[in-house]
Amino acid sequence: MTKKKAVVLGATGMMGQKFVQLLANHPWLEVSAVAASDRSVGKSYAASTGGQMVRHLPDGLGELQVVEAAPRAIADPDIVFSALPTEVAGPIEEDFAKAGFPVFSNASSHRMDHDVPLLNPEVNAEHASLVEEQKRRTKWDGFIVANPNCTTAILSLSLKPLHDRFGLETVIVSTMQAISGAGYPGVASLDILENVIPFIRNEEEKVERETNKILGTTAKPATVTVSASCQRVPTIHGHIEAVFAKTRHPASPEEVAKSMSEFQSTPQKMKLPSAPPHPIIVRKEEDRPQTRLDVDEGNGMTVSVGRLRRDSALNGIKYIVLGHNLVRGGAGCSILNAELLMAQKYIQ
Amino acid sequence: MTKKKAVVLGATGMMGQKFVQLLANHPWLEVSAVAASDRSVGKSYAASTGGQMVRHLPDGLGELQVVEAAPRAIADPDIVFSALPTEVAGPIEEDFAKAGFPVFSNASSHRMDHDVPLLNPEVNAEHASLVEEQKRRTKWDGFIVANPNCTTAILSLSLKPLHDRFGLETVIVSTMQAISGAGYPGVASLDILENVIPFIRNEEEKVERETNKILGTTAKPATVTVSASCQRVPTIHGHIEAVFAKTRHPASPEEVAKSMSEFQSTPQKMKLPSAPPHPIIVRKEEDRPQTRLDVDEGNGMTVSVGRLRRDSALNGIKYIVLGHNLVRGGAGCSILNAELLMAQKYIQ
Amino acid sequence: MTKKKAVVLGATGMMGQKFVQLLANHPWLEVSAVAASDRSVGKSYAASTGGQMVRHLPDGLGELQVVEAAPRAIADPDIVFSALPTEVAGPIEEDFAKAGFPVFSNASSHRMDHDVPLLNPEVNAEHASLVEEQKRRTKWDGFIVANPNCTTAILSLSLKPLHDRFGLETVIVSTMQAISGAGYPGVASLDILENVIPFIRNEEEKVERETNKILGTTAKPATVTVSASCQRVPTIHGHIEAVFAKTRHPASPEEVAKSMSEFQSTPQKMKLPSAPPHPIIVRKEEDRPQTRLDVDEGNGMTVSVGRLRRDSALNGIKYIVLGHNLVRGGAGCSILNAELLMAQKYIQ
Amino acid sequence: MTKKKAVVLGATGMMGQKFVQLLANHPWLEVSAVAASDRSVGKSYAASTGGQMVRHLPDGLGELQVVEAAPRAIADPDIVFSALPTEVAGPIEEDFAKAGFPVFSNASSHRMDHDVPLLNPEVNAEHASLVEEQKRRTKWDGFIVANPNCTTAILSLSLKPLHDRFGLETVIVSTMQAISGAGYPGVASLDILENVIPFIRNEEEKVERETNKILGTTAKPATVTVSASCQRVPTIHGHIEAVFAKTRHPASPEEVAKSMSEFQSTPQKMKLPSAPPHPIIVRKEEDRPQTRLDVDEGNGMTVSVGRLRRDSALNGIKYIVLGHNLVRGGAGCSILNAELLMAQKYIQ
Repeated sequence: MTKKKAVVLGATGMMGQKFVQLLANHPWLEVSAVAASDRSVGKSYAASTGGQMVRHLPDGLGELQVVEAAPRAIADPDIVFSALPTEVAGPIEEDFAKAGFPVFSNASSHRMDHDVPLLNPEVNAEHASLVEEQKRRTKWDGFIVANPNCTTAILSLSLKPLHDRFGLETVIVSTMQAISGAGYPGVASLDILENVIPFIRNEEEKVERETNKILGTTAKPATVTVSASCQRVPTIHGHIEAVFAKTRHPASPEEVAKSMSEFQSTPQKMKLPSAPPHPIIVRKEEDRPQTRLDVDEGNGMTVSVGRLRRDSALNGIKYIVLGHNLVRGGAGCSILNAELLMAQKYIQ
Repeated sequence: MTKKKAVVLGATGMMGQKFVQLLANHPWLEVSAVAASDRSVGKSYAASTGGQMVRHLPDGLGELQVVEAAPRAIADPDIVFSALPTEVAGPIEEDFAKAGFPVFSNASSHRMDHDVPLLNPEVNAEHASLVEEQKRRTKWDGFIVANPNCTTAILSLSLKPLHDRFGLETVIVSTMQAISGAGYPGVASLDILENVIPFIRNEEEKVERETNKILGTTAKPATVTVSASCQRVPTIHGHIEAVFAKTRHPASPEEVAKSMSEFQSTPQKMKLPSAPPHPIIVRKEEDRPQTRLDVDEGNGMTVSVGRLRRDSALNGIKYIVLGHNLVRGGAGCSILNAELLMAQKYIQ
Repeated sequence: MTKKKAVVLGATGMMGQKFVQLLANHPWLEVSAVAASDRSVGKSYAASTGGQMVRHLPDGLGELQVVEAAPRAIADPDIVFSALPTEVAGPIEEDFAKAGFPVFSNASSHRMDHDVPLLNPEVNAEHASLVEEQKRRTKWDGFIVANPNCTTAILSLSLKPLHDRFGLETVIVSTMQAISGAGYPGVASLDILENVIPFIRNEEEKVERETNKILGTTAKPATVTVSASCQRVPTIHGHIEAVFAKTRHPASPEEVAKSMSEFQSTPQKMKLPSAPPHPIIVRKEEDRPQTRLDVDEGNGMTVSVGRLRRDSALNGIKYIVLGHNLVRGGAGCSILNAELLMAQKYIQ
Repeated sequence: MTKKKAVVLGATGMMGQKFVQLLANHPWLEVSAVAASDRSVGKSYAASTGGQMVRHLPDGLGELQVVEAAPRAIADPDIVFSALPTEVAGPIEEDFAKAGFPVFSNASSHRMDHDVPLLNPEVNAEHASLVEEQKRRTKWDGFIVANPNCTTAILSLSLKPLHDRFGLETVIVSTMQAISGAGYPGVASLDILENVIPFIRNEEEKVERETNKILGTTAKPATVTVSASCQRVPTIHGHIEAVFAKTRHPASPEEVAKSMSEFQSTPQKMKLPSAPPHPIIVRKEEDRPQTRLDVDEGNGMTVSVGRLRRDSALNGIKYIVLGHNLVRGGAGCSILNAELLMAQKYIQ
């Protein structure tokens, strides 16, 4: 099979670099262009990203010349990945969709549009079909598919088997999020070294809203009451979340552990290249998962659950979930979305 | 007034050093002896503590010779503070109480004994009277007063005005606790640098149980449902907690902020030396309190609350609270307890 | 004595805030105005600095309205402190000197001008007289006095007794510098968390050059060969430096320790308010000084030396020196400079 | 080729786990037994190491039962790797050598014995022949080969091309060492978080002594004057060192860069499995190498050099070198030593 050509918009940022890194050696896709803001256009990709963020650029990609993030600047890609900052992402992504390209966006601009699939493939692969509705409405030749906010991607994956099996009613989540979630330069070291910052702008609202869109049907969102408190801690990669959940039907920790451990979904069945064999791993140790030790589980696509126990406050269960904010919570999820739409023939 | 003589048991550990530091220049109390384990007995206090933990020992205290933690080894103190590790604290503290001394203990050994006051003075000063019941039962000349677990001390102080004014029903708390809470050497750097450890042994149980004893009457504990998830993060001092609370009577964030800001209690009215003018400070900034910036508020005796907002899951409110785990959450609270019992004439 | 009115230029940055903090409650000086870039002009000082950097603004200062950093904008101060970034400091500081004000600058712009005193008062108080030469040359009514680069201020203070007593020939220094040295936002957390960055722009050149100006006479610089390697490490405040030094006359570690411990100079003799009783403390412990434990020695104005031992490579001695980069290495040194020139009647 | 059976002594510690990890999937060697202290004997290897230190144990090795570190407890290995702590390593390693086994030791016990090769294979492969002299003296059937102290292994590799080409005379080195160098639990988090500790017991003496043994001939040590200052910083893996070096023949930074970049040695020529293609990489960026970004270069077997520039103090050059303390500075070097002795037929 000839690899499809992928362009990465916003390729010089933290998330953009993670897209490029994950696409290197991808069996179905290859990076044909990297686009970024005017500041970088015309420079080599290596010179634009600097040496700080990624250890080694994949072979050859460092020599790519950075182009403008506009359809006219890029010779016919098959797929567009957008790691653009939310402030500028919306119209640029629309331009690419209008120009006929499938756009997989990590930005929040279009996530809540009713006919833009907000896809976390193990959770709601069936939402992919919304792109047809979207194309009808917009008359575009292309379309936009969004992946969830990092915290939501990790949380919603862990909630899915609970929701399916026991019926989720209420979720309280308190997060401890890594600095890479804020991009580069992002969080100043003076702000976070030996500190906790109990505020991440718009994050709690995103978690509360996106979780319901993901767990719902294409017709309407779920009605789980979600309440989040989001905090930044001095870790590099990996968001770890303390979750308290109430289900309609009683769920013992053992039953929950079983339903999570056994959970597999469309990406596993379709054997998509980026799908981890087990999207959720349940750890038995009393003190795991831990951010630094477990963040790379399943090449960053698996979320690790631990400390499953009864919760007295909601009369439900509580647990810890950890995932890689740049992989499952960003570029990895977006690439898995593209694989899903390729496998489902939404992309020819 | 002649200062009363205080002995610190377990004086060489992290918490013991904090007791000594806080007692230096105390208007009512002076350290007359420092006691520790056999390993340190006979050495100077300065030599026993090493230079790692406290910057500078208060004048003269470094020359004290460490004695055995037993009544026979210590010439008639007026007050005994115990920073002993829980594994050994129980019987030693009883020995001192039997020998006629008032013992203020930071250990968990006797906290849940029904006639041992578990005192956080702004919350339940009236529990002090339990020492009379305790003396009747034990026939001891002395008595034991406990201060709460660090996380509970901070949490329960923030909950008190809520409970009084609106009637607490349910509390969910997710903590991010500093390394000094585990003592010295405590947490290995390889375990916590750039990491979160989502487990602290027995901590959740303590929070859930002690909170109700503190918020209850001398006759019986409160019946608030408390559910905790306790995590360790790479900060040095200060436990910061994300709290979700449901009250019987509706409480808007504004009402809660007002009741917390205005809250004053017995220690403030009695003008006890260690009582902060405002035991709770409510911050207006969107991103405060922060561990490193706010931990020393009120010399470590004030807890800082922020991000007061509505919570949809419990249909209540949610907020962040931060306190100094070694001061309000330990030695400072214990010294305030002693001040209270002195002012109430339980100690002559 | 009526306090003299001081304005702080660049007051909203990291170093500017340290100036304001140190000037609060100063016996001779009071902050009459805070100036900063256009972005802050017209806002209150509290609103301009944000809550991130300083814990609590000194009383009343938070309400000051930030003004433009230009003589016309500021009603007759007695003294001007400049914490302006080097890129803009030069001409603004000259404007203030022209307008008749004594300017104490932390910027590097004028440090190497031959008639601008580069003052570290315990080391070269006699250089203060250069302001007369400067006024003759410039025809200004005011003048500029510079304090050294942070690393140099700490290093040169530790070298002074060595130089006086044994004659310095060669110095090799390898530094481990805190993040606050780079200002705010300064170093990105992604760059420094769990990392060492072995490069700080222009720092090595400054150390090599400024050290000789400071150790020299008003007529000519010293001829010590200085070679530096400057590294950034994940600490918040405090630069710690490994020093290897060769002297003309043999110096045993004991002799060096004695000459450092006993060292006192003009600021101590004149009892200047910011002068620490002992500008150098020599620690005996095998593992001190340590950045976090010792940075605040002497309110940040004392440097701590330790591990004095023979060095085989230069056939000299080696030691560790630590100082507070924002105090001795910045605002504190600059304020001590102003005190010196006040005491010496260069400022009426 | 049948793989040789390797036993790892001290397998449960930090360095022991690194041996096991590096030997998994080794083309010539396989772990046949893991030995440790009494505390672990009889337990499974997985249970003994806990989950903290290594992310995932190589397949099957977790089920190995830990045995006593004594020849009688281990069924005929071909090779013995010792990661024992120095306090106990000496006699145990001798017992294994007496019993006929080739012992590759990471402990310092025998490093300075004149007929024990202190091997850093790219630097002094020819020292391997000392094992014959050792066997004559000891009458043992086996022998002991030591690898250098971590800091020395990294330093001496970077010095080798300088020494060969320009003749080393003097070296000053100031180190910033990671916490994993102190083993587990090792450095307490309270000691190192947001701190620098300027002391590592015996480290400076080891660097000064071992460097000369390695750079010398089998007959006598080199006569380079080495002076070290060793510091601990809050990084996890990777020792980074600021080096100042004087050579007999003038060496420009460009010449040094070339000699380092082109440097290859016996392990590269013999294509030993653990030999990195380039044992030294010279980076051109002004701010590299950095600990976190570059520590894994060449799977941890390559040292990264940067910031090559002239040094005025020694009239030589200065540079930064970084290496992985557990790989090049420990287990990786030891395994490369074993490969060398296998290829040279000292092990049949």
